[in-house]
Amino acid sequence: MPDTRRRVFFVSDRTGITAETLGNSLLTQFDGVDFQSLTFPFVNTDDKANSVVAYIDHAAREDGVRPIVFSTTVTDSVRQKLKQANALFMDLFDTFIPTVEEELQLSWAHASGRAHGPSTKRYASRIDAMNFALEHDDGQSLRKLDKADVVLIAPSRCGKTPTSLYLALQHGVFAANYPLTEEDLETGQLPKPLKDQQHKLYGLITDATRLSQIREERRPGSKYASIQQTSYELRQATKLYKKFSVPYSDSTNMSVEEIATMVMQEKNLRRHSF
Amino acid sequence: MPDTRRRVFFVSDRTGITAETLGNSLLTQFDGVDFQSLTFPFVNTDDKANSVVAYIDHAAREDGVRPIVFSTTVTDSVRQKLKQANALFMDLFDTFIPTVEEELQLSWAHASGRAHGPSTKRYASRIDAMNFALEHDDGQSLRKLDKADVVLIAPSRCGKTPTSLYLALQHGVFAANYPLTEEDLETGQLPKPLKDQQHKLYGLITDATRLSQIREERRPGSKYASIQQTSYELRQATKLYKKFSVPYSDSTNMSVEEIATMVMQEKNLRRHSF
Repeated sequence: MPDTRRRVFFVSDRTGITAETLGNSLLTQFDGVDFQSLTFPFVNTDDKANSVVAYIDHAAREDGVRPIVFSTTVTDSVRQKLKQANALFMDLFDTFIPTVEEELQLSWAHASGRAHGPSTKRYASRIDAMNFALEHDDGQSLRKLDKADVVLIAPSRCGKTPTSLYLALQHGVFAANYPLTEEDLETGQLPKPLKDQQHKLYGLITDATRLSQIREERRPGSKYASIQQTSYELRQATKLYKKFSVPYSDSTNMSVEEIATMVMQEKNLRRHSF
Repeated sequence: MPDTRRRVFFVSDRTGITAETLGNSLLTQFDGVDFQSLTFPFVNTDDKANSVVAYIDHAAREDGVRPIVFSTTVTDSVRQKLKQANALFMDLFDTFIPTVEEELQLSWAHASGRAHGPSTKRYASRIDAMNFALEHDDGQSLRKLDKADVVLIAPSRCGKTPTSLYLALQHGVFAANYPLTEEDLETGQLPKPLKDQQHKLYGLITDATRLSQIREERRPGSKYASIQQTSYELRQATKLYKKFSVPYSDSTNMSVEEIATMVMQEKNLRRHSF
């Protein structure tokens, strides 16, 4: 039986990130449905709301089944309009705000763009973190390693760079990363520049076959990409982590978000949400 | 009057990203409260739930006011334990799942890590996008510009790099970026390598004073950082965008998320949520 198809709309007066996150977390819990989603950001006027309603109603007629709408709109009049669409309508603020208002004995601000909007201080701190990650990618620079919150180490292509950049952009963490070369792995010693930073190290490993496939794309047929080589490097890296009590994760079955979460938890790093 | 303090806990059996997003969107709507938040990821056993409950109860006693808890836990027994904490407890699944179940006439999977968990295909596509953004940062490489979904152009330090990396990591978009040099701005022509890519271009500008401050940090006292220079470059860039019908945004009062959302909307790019 083919999956049934259902249209999903994420509607927001700003970026739509919260609506998407909320909706995806819920909908990924349902198997056997082919959800086709579309995001409408910046829906902040009655006119725009009317256009979105027309779009949703058209989809409902075309599909013969009403779409699902996840909304995060702070303007009451816009939300009222959206509610009139022929859809299952779920709004974050409608649902939770009364409970929080009662708890805090305060009224909400109805202000848009606060969760993912601009903030000069926040902007500066994440850009600083990103520049740090770029400068200290793959051991390029060792200048300010003492400023790093964490230094990721691993053999080539185990996920150091995406994890560093994600930590910077998403959480404002200063993450450097340093490759473990064949030489480091042979001697069984930490690379010299890292000796003073031992408490900041976090290691990554992955599956030897998968690593071989990834390296194969870069340098087909090379020794570097061979399963013998990747097995050897991963085995030696694991030994090194154990010898120097470096906490580490196997990234094979983890997303970038999950690796980043593990690193922050292990290193007791404060999470900033941007 | 100083802000009242309230503790907030984000609890999840995986990364906690959804709980944080949900909670932050709601709490940023309340002024005058100093929310102090802490995330507990990977709470996936009864034992771990008990520890979290003990922590929350301790905080409640210490503060004399119950904390607020945002939870996204799929395991019923874990959620039941967490509910016993002395807190205002709000769970994403508890709240919305019954409505969605009824709409779809399906039961939910109770599977953790689906929204931000691993997926080999998804992992590969965002890593490809990230590598593309790194290789094509600041005009470094022009090799595969034809594969770009979008090419961001702007004078130096207007936000091209963070936007490109965010588009890649968060949405799997292939974003290149290219600096507009003084020479390009003087001639009033698009840089040569971009002439075939005109339909992919998206321009950025920012406030001249702010740009001057940002450049000042890099090269203090330089002509590059002077307000005369930044004003001139931004004026010329705006002219260039208009002359070649390049859509553009002023990034001054926008977050990276908002700029990325504008770019995707303008270029009709499909959003992937990771």
